[in-house]
Amino acid sequence: MPSLPYYAVIFTSVRTDVDEGYLETNELLMKKAHEYEGFLHQDAVRDGIGIAISYWRDLESIIEWRKDSDHILAKGRGKKEWYRQYSVRIAKVESEYGMSGVEYSADNNH
Amino acid sequence: MPSLPYYAVIFTSVRTDVDEGYLETNELLMKKAHEYEGFLHQDAVRDGIGIAISYWRDLESIIEWRKDSDHILAKGRGKKEWYRQYSVRIAKVESEYGMSGVEYSADNNH
Repeated sequence: MPSLPYYAVIFTSVRTDVDEGYLETNELLMKKAHEYEGFLHQDAVRDGIGIAISYWRDLESIIEWRKDSDHILAKGRGKKEWYRQYSVRIAKVESEYGMSGVEYSADNNH
Repeated sequence: MPSLPYYAVIFTSVRTDVDEGYLETNELLMKKAHEYEGFLHQDAVRDGIGIAISYWRDLESIIEWRKDSDHILAKGRGKKEWYRQYSVRIAKVESEYGMSGVEYSADNNH
């Protein structure tokens, strides 16, 4: 686990019924995010609403990721095509704990 | 939306196949959390992994909630019966934005 504090970008959304380009773009973005040095981890689940949380080393890393050209393109399409509602929250993770002795498995990317 | 900063408790988990008491307890806890003055909102989704995020006005509210007797009982059962893995992160929400003009719908409780 990374040292505290680190940052979480909490993306909560409700989809439209437009699927075109959605999964491919998601996959591309995950691949690209992993290339950023400050990227730590992502968890994402959708069932009706979707919650995707990406974790980053610091705010600067999030700002770098915001400048990514594929990310910018995806955001534009997301607003117009894929999401009916969404909210983004930037949060500083100040503490964490888990079930002892069990490593939480990484990279759930749906 | 509440004024910034406020707090998020990010609970990420993988279930066992034990269902006994799980849904009832979830429902009870949601009802009780709503009775706390500092409780703001909860989003929860499960599909394979589960992500549940509850939002609170401040750290003190989270500490109050931790002392709730039903919450304490549920945590005990959760560790022993319902969760194979989990992690809890406490994070301070420093900024937020969303799709303009659209209110994100509240109380997704699964």
